[in-house]
Amino acid sequence: MNLQQDLKRYKILIEEELKKVFPKDNIPQEIILESMEYSLLAGGKRLRPILLLKSCELVNGNVQEAIPFAIAMEMIHTYSLIHDDLPAMDDDDYRRGNLTNHKVYGDGLAILAGDGLLNYAYEIMLKTVIENKYSNKFIDAMNEIANSAGFNGMIGGQVVDIISENKEISPKILDFIHLNKTSALIEASLVAGGIIGEANSQEIQLLRDYGKYIGVSFQIRDDILDIVGDQKILGKDIGSDIDKEKSTYVSIHGMDKSIIDLETYRDKAIKIMSKFDKNKATFFVELADYLTVRDN
Amino acid sequence: MNLQQDLKRYKILIEEELKKVFPKDNIPQEIILESMEYSLLAGGKRLRPILLLKSCELVNGNVQEAIPFAIAMEMIHTYSLIHDDLPAMDDDDYRRGNLTNHKVYGDGLAILAGDGLLNYAYEIMLKTVIENKYSNKFIDAMNEIANSAGFNGMIGGQVVDIISENKEISPKILDFIHLNKTSALIEASLVAGGIIGEANSQEIQLLRDYGKYIGVSFQIRDDILDIVGDQKILGKDIGSDIDKEKSTYVSIHGMDKSIIDLETYRDKAIKIMSKFDKNKATFFVELADYLTVRDN
Repeated sequence: MNLQQDLKRYKILIEEELKKVFPKDNIPQEIILESMEYSLLAGGKRLRPILLLKSCELVNGNVQEAIPFAIAMEMIHTYSLIHDDLPAMDDDDYRRGNLTNHKVYGDGLAILAGDGLLNYAYEIMLKTVIENKYSNKFIDAMNEIANSAGFNGMIGGQVVDIISENKEISPKILDFIHLNKTSALIEASLVAGGIIGEANSQEIQLLRDYGKYIGVSFQIRDDILDIVGDQKILGKDIGSDIDKEKSTYVSIHGMDKSIIDLETYRDKAIKIMSKFDKNKATFFVELADYLTVRDN
Repeated sequence: MNLQQDLKRYKILIEEELKKVFPKDNIPQEIILESMEYSLLAGGKRLRPILLLKSCELVNGNVQEAIPFAIAMEMIHTYSLIHDDLPAMDDDDYRRGNLTNHKVYGDGLAILAGDGLLNYAYEIMLKTVIENKYSNKFIDAMNEIANSAGFNGMIGGQVVDIISENKEISPKILDFIHLNKTSALIEASLVAGGIIGEANSQEIQLLRDYGKYIGVSFQIRDDILDIVGDQKILGKDIGSDIDKEKSTYVSIHGMDKSIIDLETYRDKAIKIMSKFDKNKATFFVELADYLTVRDN
């Protein structure tokens, strides 16, 4: 099975699960369920939950067990996008070709929908822990995810991203933003999948490194696409970084070095996968390659 | 020891712990630590963490063990206030006599500070679970807190509060808002403290009921204070509910019935406490009484 088929198959699996998440009760607060679901089902690559499941599979774990955590991870990612799109932050009207949450539901409900998704991610993970007889591995996976999403991870990256707008920033600060804003959740997805799949500590470290490399690749490609991408294929505005005078990998290092570095990270990621079962690692090798050339 | 001394002693204990929470590192995202700490240390009654610790004590639990959960609970409460004060929600400039978070740090950082506090609450609870050898009771306490804070609890209450602005609402919907927006976390504080203190299921139910009654009392008194309170003592604007054309317990039921109902809930709460050790229950009896007459 090739990469695109595999990505599609897992994307469908995840979206089927996401559709089941919210109760369809007639309750006073149902508008928040609608708002959370709106963003959760608004498409996207589902990269993080796919990585979580695939990572579990890579180390011969039980993928079924990992599904609630994959869903939780997508909720955390989605909440961060809802809040990031708000007028007080990036002020984006479109995301994945659809109106952003606050353009449909208003800023107040969008803030609460984000809060609701973050909290629900923990509710789902805790339910899974308890249903699995308080198994330690699920707690460890939850801990990994929690640490990646907080002020020492994703939120930290977003903070520095915001305070760096309209400023010249150093390559070091840009790396900090990328490693935290983008890589942290990608890395945590791989590690959490590995933990649930009962990987040993050496395998966990390899998954962590792979996550870091493809996370940075992902972000560099994003910055390149903000210049050379096709708005229709991307489903979001082109040139938005330039409009906001945001420093990007390309604005700091130039296009040529960006492409070279992207390929270097790809090669490092691919090399790591030689340590795993060749058959199962194919997905990760092809993915690292794809992330350097993707159009959306 | 009388109630006010007891409340003060526990408030000091909690504030000492809150001061230790954030690292004082020179890190790129330190502004978010400052912003989270600003709101976390901006005073307040610390009612929820005090209830959590006192509830643990009431059932003869080890109060020391419960401290990280008390801190986490105050973080969840604080995050909800930061987001609630935003222009997109209640648009308040002052809270507890201080400028609200977004007035100091801007809307973007205030949103992220709220997100950071919510996430950090889970980080702290998970750390405690792992440090306590994955003890089930901490997971159960975390689960109780998570369910109370989400769209079926506090967030649900806030959603209905927001969509009810400038509208006549039914007494049933007002009860929904109060039970979820205010009571849910108060109830969860008592239950989580009970769980950590290893209460039996009958005691847990009593704590839950007590929490519900004082939660509603607390909110009715809040609505009364919005009309008859002293702005200086309250540390927030008076008449803000009227300005926003918000339905309150007083606007729906009238002042006389509000006072009668407040006393009824107080009596119900006090009656529950007769089932516990008389000495330790004194705090809860006096607290229920105090909440009906408090000025801030």
